[in-house]
Amino acid sequence: MATPSPGYSITIRVEVPAAATSTAALTAAVASAGGALTALDVAESRTDRLVVDVTCDTSDEAHAKLITEAIGRIPGAEVRKVSDQTFLLHLGGKLEVVPKVPLKHRDDLSRAYTPGVARVCLAIAAHPEDARRLTIKRNTVAVVTDGSAVLGLGNIGPLAAIPVMEGKAALFKQFGGVDAWPVCLDTQDSDEIVSIVKAIAPVYGGINLEDISAPRCFEIEARLREALDIPVFHDDQHGTAIVVLAALTNALRVVGKRLEDVRIVVSGVGAAGHAIIRLLLSQGASDIIGCGRHGAVHEGQDGMEPFRLWIAEHTNRSRREGSLAEVLVGADVFIGVSAPNLLTGDDIATMAPDAIVFALANPVPEVDPLVASEHAAVVATGRSDAPNQINNVLVFPGFFRGLLDAGVSGITDEMLVAAAHAIAGVVTDEQLNASYIIPSVFDPAVAAAVAEAVRGAASAEGVHSPAAEA
Amino acid sequence: MATPSPGYSITIRVEVPAAATSTAALTAAVASAGGALTALDVAESRTDRLVVDVTCDTSDEAHAKLITEAIGRIPGAEVRKVSDQTFLLHLGGKLEVVPKVPLKHRDDLSRAYTPGVARVCLAIAAHPEDARRLTIKRNTVAVVTDGSAVLGLGNIGPLAAIPVMEGKAALFKQFGGVDAWPVCLDTQDSDEIVSIVKAIAPVYGGINLEDISAPRCFEIEARLREALDIPVFHDDQHGTAIVVLAALTNALRVVGKRLEDVRIVVSGVGAAGHAIIRLLLSQGASDIIGCGRHGAVHEGQDGMEPFRLWIAEHTNRSRREGSLAEVLVGADVFIGVSAPNLLTGDDIATMAPDAIVFALANPVPEVDPLVASEHAAVVATGRSDAPNQINNVLVFPGFFRGLLDAGVSGITDEMLVAAAHAIAGVVTDEQLNASYIIPSVFDPAVAAAVAEAVRGAASAEGVHSPAAEA
Repeated sequence: MATPSPGYSITIRVEVPAAATSTAALTAAVASAGGALTALDVAESRTDRLVVDVTCDTSDEAHAKLITEAIGRIPGAEVRKVSDQTFLLHLGGKLEVVPKVPLKHRDDLSRAYTPGVARVCLAIAAHPEDARRLTIKRNTVAVVTDGSAVLGLGNIGPLAAIPVMEGKAALFKQFGGVDAWPVCLDTQDSDEIVSIVKAIAPVYGGINLEDISAPRCFEIEARLREALDIPVFHDDQHGTAIVVLAALTNALRVVGKRLEDVRIVVSGVGAAGHAIIRLLLSQGASDIIGCGRHGAVHEGQDGMEPFRLWIAEHTNRSRREGSLAEVLVGADVFIGVSAPNLLTGDDIATMAPDAIVFALANPVPEVDPLVASEHAAVVATGRSDAPNQINNVLVFPGFFRGLLDAGVSGITDEMLVAAAHAIAGVVTDEQLNASYIIPSVFDPAVAAAVAEAVRGAASAEGVHSPAAEA
Repeated sequence: MATPSPGYSITIRVEVPAAATSTAALTAAVASAGGALTALDVAESRTDRLVVDVTCDTSDEAHAKLITEAIGRIPGAEVRKVSDQTFLLHLGGKLEVVPKVPLKHRDDLSRAYTPGVARVCLAIAAHPEDARRLTIKRNTVAVVTDGSAVLGLGNIGPLAAIPVMEGKAALFKQFGGVDAWPVCLDTQDSDEIVSIVKAIAPVYGGINLEDISAPRCFEIEARLREALDIPVFHDDQHGTAIVVLAALTNALRVVGKRLEDVRIVVSGVGAAGHAIIRLLLSQGASDIIGCGRHGAVHEGQDGMEPFRLWIAEHTNRSRREGSLAEVLVGADVFIGVSAPNLLTGDDIATMAPDAIVFALANPVPEVDPLVASEHAAVVATGRSDAPNQINNVLVFPGFFRGLLDAGVSGITDEMLVAAAHAIAGVVTDEQLNASYIIPSVFDPAVAAAVAEAVRGAASAEGVHSPAAEA
């Protein structure tokens, strides 16, 4: 059974006899069923009866049921209601839109709305670039999805994608001070998505594409980059590539190898795999093999879509063939952005000495991190319950903070690299070890460092826009 | 010259000799140029010099220049900088997107984002109607424009429209507790606008169409109403019609006439005029004449678009012809939603005894309200500097509050009427007089009363959706 997680915390409201032993029995019942008790609150008390709210972390729905049944078996206990803390948190949504200006009396209204606002409108009509100064465009990002590839859940559609996009927007604000808004589109037609995003763009200073299935996401991103004068970021590609490069930079420091010298196997040739490979190649990696569902990607295969073809043409120079496990033999680095449980400890054992394993499939990695750590020098996952969590939250808030501050119209490879090095640099030489190659997502230094790096890359390249001066 | 307004307040930073007479000279200079001084702050002080921020209301750009020049003429004074309070207020935009959930530590992240959020997504995928409970859809409205008819400024485009839509969103939150988001579209193609709004709809519990030019706005609204399962409100039509019916209800109470008996002339047959006429007819008005640019609309005219044709077919039963001034003779009620300075006091004098005049063109009414009040019993405008301000702010926050609370899928005429009566009812018999037919936009009772009325109308008609129960 998986470890109980606060992501699946329940509160069981139960009525028990008002005996000294009652709460002890509740604690024991939760423990016996493998739950992690986090709170025990008496909601009502009478002479003979207590109503108690028992809150505990569970691992899944079956486990929650098991715990509830264990409590129900306590003599005299009666379970009244079981509520799910995660659902309670999401009730009514996770965002609100708040005025930054006072609207208490007539003068406020005259300035923020009519008649005063007309002057601001006319100023923007005369100088459109002033929209970045005088409207929310200055600090606002659209988080755009079509619901076609949400988390690991697949094509669940735009309504079901809203909670993720809200969460993303909340993280943008919390960590980057960026105002982000969910745009969940009820269409999966690439042409239509491109024209919609173009049409809604006036309000935004940047576009964050999210959870759009490959290969459609590549085309949509490329066309939007071409069409828009604001930066377009595809988190599944760029965010992941940045944080992987950051983690790999530090992992290589730990094992004392150089990117130019290592053999890298990337499992997964979708959006993330493609972007990781592109970024690693640009940084000097020379020996990369991409693996899809049917093994190593190499030149001369039939029926490849353009992005897989690009991978075939730029990696695997010796045209190695075979399954993932076969090409992994002797590799220095494994980067998985693919599917659960593809590899065993024995597979990892075949890698080169001081191997680095990034098993990023979520929630279940390509290989059990505990097992992998028996054979590899550095192991990282996307999970929060193991060391070295490689999470895009380290990237997007600070990255967009930097983009908006610099007022740039596009994203360059230099910005991606600068952001990766900034994240890696937050871990000092004194802190660096095999269990700490990447800072915590709650480290406040990360977003600030990433933003600074992006601003620096922007001004070095002269892509700093004059609109940002004001 | 127009009255100085806080909507055009400037701050003049000026350096003057540190003499006792200096600030008096500043005050005198502002007064001599007709400015209304609101603040005088010493920003810096040295032995011999003072730097003073002089803040005053002005009437327009020329007036601001006049005042600045008057200050510049004070012996020894040097104007350093003139800044516009309205522009300062708009810097960086007027809205922010704020998380409603804590994101301080790991457990928060596990619930609001991954892995916990996946469960909420799956629940919505299984029961799409739960999106109204578990996401921002419950409380969120899109304020949609294409920038084609913004305020009285015309077709200024989507970027220049943003400050108005932000202001509107701020008012939604302030007065109705509704989260509203600006959607400013870079297209004026009706088909494209319809398909975009359909595509972005999943995130929203309602659509507020705003400042889209007639007659396109009619078609867009009708098609969206047909296509969507959330209410579509066109503020320029419905909002205006509701607040006019509210004001007219009370004005008729003041003069002791009945809607069924009065002759009404409506100047302006665009979006607002059409909606006003429709609502008044539904409430029993029987003698209405609509006037366009070329005078009275009546059957048998050539080349009318569908909505004007509808007006021709449903009003002016005696087919009166002539100019606005000609058909106004003997009328009981004038409602203007058209253009500045169409009528004189002499025209108003030709109306029936105890005439009612609503001159709503903004910022300059169809007739000067002071002049009109010499000949009419009740005069109202859209302006904030005269009694009886007829303003849509009285409607939309409470109206959407009610729609979202009831979880309805559409808007009925009964809701419009109920909202109008609720606004009229906020003015008690004791308060009612010719100068107080409509409550202040800052009266907190208004939005609550409107919301209550809409909820009541929804449940009376059984359009209350089950999704709202949760």
